[in-house]
Amino acid sequence: MKKLWAGRFTQKTSGMVESFTESISFDRKLWKHDIAGSIAHAKMLSKQRIITQKEANSIIRGLRQIAEEIGKGAFAFSPGLEDIHMNIESALTDRIGPPGKKVHTARSRNDQVALDLRLYLKDAMQDIISLLQRLQKTFVELAEKHQDALMPGYTHLQRAQPVLLGHHLLAYVEMFGRDRERFQDCLKRTDICPLGSCALSGTSLPTDRAYTAKLLGFNSISGNSIDAVSDRDFAVEFLACAAIAMMHLSRLAEELILWSTEEFSFIEISDRFTTGSSIMPQKKNPDVAELMRGKTGRVYGNLMALLTLMKGLPLAYNRDMQEDKLPVFDSAETLTACYRVLEEMMRNVKFNINRLSSTAGKGYSTATDIAEYLVRKGLPFREAHEITGRIVLHCISKDVQLTGLSLPELKSFSPKISEDIIHVLDPAESVKARTSFGGTSPSEVKRQIRHFKKVLK
Amino acid sequence: MKKLWAGRFTQKTSGMVESFTESISFDRKLWKHDIAGSIAHAKMLSKQRIITQKEANSIIRGLRQIAEEIGKGAFAFSPGLEDIHMNIESALTDRIGPPGKKVHTARSRNDQVALDLRLYLKDAMQDIISLLQRLQKTFVELAEKHQDALMPGYTHLQRAQPVLLGHHLLAYVEMFGRDRERFQDCLKRTDICPLGSCALSGTSLPTDRAYTAKLLGFNSISGNSIDAVSDRDFAVEFLACAAIAMMHLSRLAEELILWSTEEFSFIEISDRFTTGSSIMPQKKNPDVAELMRGKTGRVYGNLMALLTLMKGLPLAYNRDMQEDKLPVFDSAETLTACYRVLEEMMRNVKFNINRLSSTAGKGYSTATDIAEYLVRKGLPFREAHEITGRIVLHCISKDVQLTGLSLPELKSFSPKISEDIIHVLDPAESVKARTSFGGTSPSEVKRQIRHFKKVLK
Amino acid sequence: MKKLWAGRFTQKTSGMVESFTESISFDRKLWKHDIAGSIAHAKMLSKQRIITQKEANSIIRGLRQIAEEIGKGAFAFSPGLEDIHMNIESALTDRIGPPGKKVHTARSRNDQVALDLRLYLKDAMQDIISLLQRLQKTFVELAEKHQDALMPGYTHLQRAQPVLLGHHLLAYVEMFGRDRERFQDCLKRTDICPLGSCALSGTSLPTDRAYTAKLLGFNSISGNSIDAVSDRDFAVEFLACAAIAMMHLSRLAEELILWSTEEFSFIEISDRFTTGSSIMPQKKNPDVAELMRGKTGRVYGNLMALLTLMKGLPLAYNRDMQEDKLPVFDSAETLTACYRVLEEMMRNVKFNINRLSSTAGKGYSTATDIAEYLVRKGLPFREAHEITGRIVLHCISKDVQLTGLSLPELKSFSPKISEDIIHVLDPAESVKARTSFGGTSPSEVKRQIRHFKKVLK
Amino acid sequence: MKKLWAGRFTQKTSGMVESFTESISFDRKLWKHDIAGSIAHAKMLSKQRIITQKEANSIIRGLRQIAEEIGKGAFAFSPGLEDIHMNIESALTDRIGPPGKKVHTARSRNDQVALDLRLYLKDAMQDIISLLQRLQKTFVELAEKHQDALMPGYTHLQRAQPVLLGHHLLAYVEMFGRDRERFQDCLKRTDICPLGSCALSGTSLPTDRAYTAKLLGFNSISGNSIDAVSDRDFAVEFLACAAIAMMHLSRLAEELILWSTEEFSFIEISDRFTTGSSIMPQKKNPDVAELMRGKTGRVYGNLMALLTLMKGLPLAYNRDMQEDKLPVFDSAETLTACYRVLEEMMRNVKFNINRLSSTAGKGYSTATDIAEYLVRKGLPFREAHEITGRIVLHCISKDVQLTGLSLPELKSFSPKISEDIIHVLDPAESVKARTSFGGTSPSEVKRQIRHFKKVLK
Repeated sequence: MKKLWAGRFTQKTSGMVESFTESISFDRKLWKHDIAGSIAHAKMLSKQRIITQKEANSIIRGLRQIAEEIGKGAFAFSPGLEDIHMNIESALTDRIGPPGKKVHTARSRNDQVALDLRLYLKDAMQDIISLLQRLQKTFVELAEKHQDALMPGYTHLQRAQPVLLGHHLLAYVEMFGRDRERFQDCLKRTDICPLGSCALSGTSLPTDRAYTAKLLGFNSISGNSIDAVSDRDFAVEFLACAAIAMMHLSRLAEELILWSTEEFSFIEISDRFTTGSSIMPQKKNPDVAELMRGKTGRVYGNLMALLTLMKGLPLAYNRDMQEDKLPVFDSAETLTACYRVLEEMMRNVKFNINRLSSTAGKGYSTATDIAEYLVRKGLPFREAHEITGRIVLHCISKDVQLTGLSLPELKSFSPKISEDIIHVLDPAESVKARTSFGGTSPSEVKRQIRHFKKVLK
Repeated sequence: MKKLWAGRFTQKTSGMVESFTESISFDRKLWKHDIAGSIAHAKMLSKQRIITQKEANSIIRGLRQIAEEIGKGAFAFSPGLEDIHMNIESALTDRIGPPGKKVHTARSRNDQVALDLRLYLKDAMQDIISLLQRLQKTFVELAEKHQDALMPGYTHLQRAQPVLLGHHLLAYVEMFGRDRERFQDCLKRTDICPLGSCALSGTSLPTDRAYTAKLLGFNSISGNSIDAVSDRDFAVEFLACAAIAMMHLSRLAEELILWSTEEFSFIEISDRFTTGSSIMPQKKNPDVAELMRGKTGRVYGNLMALLTLMKGLPLAYNRDMQEDKLPVFDSAETLTACYRVLEEMMRNVKFNINRLSSTAGKGYSTATDIAEYLVRKGLPFREAHEITGRIVLHCISKDVQLTGLSLPELKSFSPKISEDIIHVLDPAESVKARTSFGGTSPSEVKRQIRHFKKVLK
Repeated sequence: MKKLWAGRFTQKTSGMVESFTESISFDRKLWKHDIAGSIAHAKMLSKQRIITQKEANSIIRGLRQIAEEIGKGAFAFSPGLEDIHMNIESALTDRIGPPGKKVHTARSRNDQVALDLRLYLKDAMQDIISLLQRLQKTFVELAEKHQDALMPGYTHLQRAQPVLLGHHLLAYVEMFGRDRERFQDCLKRTDICPLGSCALSGTSLPTDRAYTAKLLGFNSISGNSIDAVSDRDFAVEFLACAAIAMMHLSRLAEELILWSTEEFSFIEISDRFTTGSSIMPQKKNPDVAELMRGKTGRVYGNLMALLTLMKGLPLAYNRDMQEDKLPVFDSAETLTACYRVLEEMMRNVKFNINRLSSTAGKGYSTATDIAEYLVRKGLPFREAHEITGRIVLHCISKDVQLTGLSLPELKSFSPKISEDIIHVLDPAESVKARTSFGGTSPSEVKRQIRHFKKVLK
Repeated sequence: MKKLWAGRFTQKTSGMVESFTESISFDRKLWKHDIAGSIAHAKMLSKQRIITQKEANSIIRGLRQIAEEIGKGAFAFSPGLEDIHMNIESALTDRIGPPGKKVHTARSRNDQVALDLRLYLKDAMQDIISLLQRLQKTFVELAEKHQDALMPGYTHLQRAQPVLLGHHLLAYVEMFGRDRERFQDCLKRTDICPLGSCALSGTSLPTDRAYTAKLLGFNSISGNSIDAVSDRDFAVEFLACAAIAMMHLSRLAEELILWSTEEFSFIEISDRFTTGSSIMPQKKNPDVAELMRGKTGRVYGNLMALLTLMKGLPLAYNRDMQEDKLPVFDSAETLTACYRVLEEMMRNVKFNINRLSSTAGKGYSTATDIAEYLVRKGLPFREAHEITGRIVLHCISKDVQLTGLSLPELKSFSPKISEDIIHVLDPAESVKARTSFGGTSPSEVKRQIRHFKKVLK
């Protein structure tokens, strides 16, 4: 197939090179964005009288027809035509003749591909942001449903202090909220139209870049044509946001897996969201959570891939940058798929409230309450901590919980201890007392829920 | 040394474990932030009558004295006391007695270290942002100085089109600007006070978290105590911003190295910013640029380190997170050092304007101008491109530049070509014509300079 | 579709979960290995009388038929059947009835997938190793062809000393040789049969694992069933070897790109291995080399993906590990494609010997020879280095090359200098003199070539 | 301070550049190797009569004196002298006068630093290999001690089948064994002497590289001088081996953390290897294991750092490569520290054998045994699996374990079931039956122990 740039060449590209350098096998994913870009470009060219109105109409009609064909799966992509841009331009000229040869006026593939990727990412990030918002809502609903349920709070995976299940679930709402913010900030830097920067230096033709940008719904246009075609910051930043977002999912997945163990038995995931074993008939595995955790690898890897690729590249466009697309597509699709399945799965998780509550007070988890009790009675915190440590040690040696000690036994550790300590040892009371802002008391958790319900409307 | 948490333990920590788990060898870097945090905390405790005014004063005096000692290098840090928090608390009690045992009331190391790291990063990012701004100014000055100098613009490291040196330099001003924006956005998410979240669940003591946050200059306070001690997003995001920023430096470094070669000879870096060889007496190497490029590795590695660390951690605090500090410190210091030396070096780079200008028109770099000329004469772009390609091929076979062709020779390729094509072949005219927004024309480059001078005030 | 493990489930898997957890879209690549494994397994089962000879024959016939169908593209893979193992087992039972239900006796998908991946990687690494060997041969041929051609050797991308082009090319033969060795070592650790480890604990059925391993051509069998299903070291190690190998290609690619610039003009890559620009009619870009350099990103990313995935996984098999395949496939295919196209391209590179030779002596590249000359005349090296440095400085100020100095001028720097220095300034003589083992002298380069020709037979 | 390469320079290096480019702050760690290399080099120079015997003796005496000073901490390193090589050479000339100026004859820092790093890594890897061997022995001892203890084997962190604790521990012995092998293979490729390659092209002086290599205990010498100074494969490969080794530690750490939870309660780590909380008096945290897991991040990051650094570097030496040392040092030290503390900690872990054994049979973990029982009775595996799945479902609905079913109940699922099934339901019997090679039966575990005791002598 004759290359559209072949004028200066005397030999045909090797077949091996064609298949090594082609990108149509993956950049076809950009077809909608490529066509939208070309339509807007043609409108601008005709508005600026670089082409005629009639030519523009013919181009637009041709492109819409191609879009329809691709949408229906009726379009034959050709690797010999390298990429999505050349595939579409070539098809256009096939269909409409001479005017097709004018669509590439005052642009280059360098600015065109930057445009397509930005359009793609704008869509992808908007999707992700709204999936994150739905996920936040789901978690707020779960938190509200379980706002009074006690559970053991952990540090170092050791039971630390009783908390409310709702409080724990809201921690993820915070994370998803930061993820949304980060994607939103990245979106600002993605929402800039590079089209019209051409190969790297702009054009001598009388274009109106702002007009094209407006047609395509961009917020602004790039200010420096050399930078505009060299820049993949928006893609790297997206991959970094995705990596952080995926890290959050890996933490949640780890908890869901832990909580599904016989040993924890905090939750049961519905049959519909688990799978079995080919050999062990009894198995019911939290596969979705495991895969979500495992997919963290690829999302981190994608970030590293693009950072590596961009390292040390001189300006402006280099062909290395063709390899920017696969990691971007993969992270966007992975994140989207995880959010979709996660939301559905969370609605199908059964929390074993009895188990959660009954373990909340175990493991001396109200020891900090004793220390704070002693502080309220006037002891310096460090002494209170020391005394409580000795009480715990005593419990361990006697193999009883804190509530298993008699008042005289407790008093023997400090004369400051009196009957009112009983309250303090009860995990429900412990939780109720933690009224500091952001703390685990029911009033604070309710405040957080109210806050999110307002914000997430 | 007796651990401050040793109440419940029957055996002493192994010496091997002490040295494995200590962080004082690196977290001592946080001393200023740790002390500032404790002073604010003590003020809040006394305002809330959790401790007396007198105790608070004694604590504050003690902490200030410790700060002075550390500042003078007169403070003996002890690995047996694990970390900066315990070193300072222990020294405080040594110096002021019983009130020292009260400073840790209503807080935990979990929220304390999150606080310290946030304070550190707020400082570091503010430094980085102002260094970036200075760097932008330096590049704008250089661009202004060289705004009329021609140079070959490259794509694929092949000469593509003539551009202005000023235009090329301004591409980096764009990158540095995006870096600033990203750090600024990250700063928003760092500027949130976690103190008072305690171990993970808040406290039963009547604290006023907003007051402490205000004293420390924070913009807001964290909303969920479990999240507040589990969250290192701000640190990962910082490392991601640093990685992208460093990628920009690696690209600039690559260009400085290329341009310093005999082959390019575009610049000469001052003796003061180069070094010699231990064996080859003639060598003068662009070491600073090479090291800058090489340091990209560690900054990428730091990001990967923290992402890996956080993968799959259940809530809330886990000791793994102690390892968050070294990558953060290293990336902050690497970036700062690079910016400082880069700015100075750029002021000591001599651009070989003659060489740059004389090569600007070589390599058929005005071929695109011929194509656009033919478009203005009414040919479809694709045909114009094809014809120009044949002209270039003709030049190659005759081993002449485009300007080496006679008018009849040129006309033989297309009847549309007439005398006015001479203009088009001149790189200076080529550049002048690229007046599209963001293009390389002198007027556009001046506009960019004006824009940045206004913005960078 | 009824899951083969569905006995203990009361609800059907959600469609969303099916598509989230399926791996058939990518692990179908393992079909040959999966079928080979099952055939060997069936033979062993019948040899051990766990199934009858007749059942085994029926299974083997069925599997061969399936293989044929897949080979012809006539097999319908079903995502509802999750993975390649279940797709094939299910098809087998469809085709041959009851005996099909016996093929999974005494194995699990856990050991089966480990087997398949090992078989895949054994093939892939053997391919890579022989491609590397061919590449070495090609480079040795090129080195032999250009063994007398001078070129400037670089450090810091500054001309350092004249070297032979053959010597430079042989540096890559060394790298490819180490790559081969590494893959060979990885192959040792891959060539271990895990089949028969079952889910994690082995089986109570009287299997003969050594027999199966022998049928499949394995060198040995795994020693611990828990480890055998948990272990992906061989895959990570493969990805690490691939990353190092790709790093070598990125260095070569960088050089090919540099050498193709107008500024260096050391090589010309054939039209058949370059591509053009959609906008700039004169462009001929070293795209293959650029893409090779860019693909380094994905190969590094794949390594990071699997390392991340495996971090912190408890024993034994976890579903996360399903995500091990894509990075392995991608790195294997990327490497293979690069090697194929690279070998062909290198045969189509024209070295501009004149340009290489004429620049070899430029840039004071024989300065070290002067210093060594002075050492032979009895000066300490450090003094000789200092004197030569001053000679170079003198040349720079006079803007002449070293050969441009008169003998009296040279003598003025040291009385040790006499007429015989003329020899030393000639790059061809410089090269000839560097006869130390591994040095750049023609005799040494010939020795290296002889060595590799013997070794690479 | 006058630079040893300053002859050709007219301006002094900027102070800022000195501190940016110095490496003495970290490469001083190489002092022993640098001095050993120089002593061997001096011996070779005198043997080859490039310097006199007397000069060599003086050099060697001087270097030994410097070594003594550094060893005692009495040596003042100067950043102005850039690196360890120049610091030592300069000190040597200070101490012994003119002969000191001869030590750098016929070498360059390029080959010198490659030598030093190889010597360092040879030492580091030998240490690591013997630490790994000790660790293997420790685990084999533990496995022997607990060879009869039952525990639940897990897949997907769900109880899968009963296994022997000894068997599980031996899985780590396998991993450590592969780590050793990998380091051993890397050692082969590190054990090659680059000294004498000089800047990149060898030397014209009559050196004997093989002699120097022999003095330094190297196995062979590098074959191509350009490659020898460009190559950091051995360092990247070391970092990759370290990353895989660290991944193993992260898996073990994860298990130790899980097993230390209240919920699992499989082990108790001695007080001496755990630490407490600054706020929660009852806490006893598995910090060592958590830090080990967390340090995986830095070891992965180090690998990524060096891979990134090397990407796209043209031959031969580039200053970027100075940044190779920190990641290498850090991974070597991290691994060494982890192995030391881990070995000691493992000896201080108390396994709760009762708890392990009593849970071994829970969670329907002998379901696979029922299926295999039915296979032995003649059912196809797939049917056996299906029937057992239904038995499990029945147990779940009745909330009993498998042993809680009566024989008639069991029989109702299949007429093949008879009294002898009782055996099969007992986890101890289940384990005993798994006699396949590498399986979990006591006989197989004993075989593995015997094997390792022989191999690890």
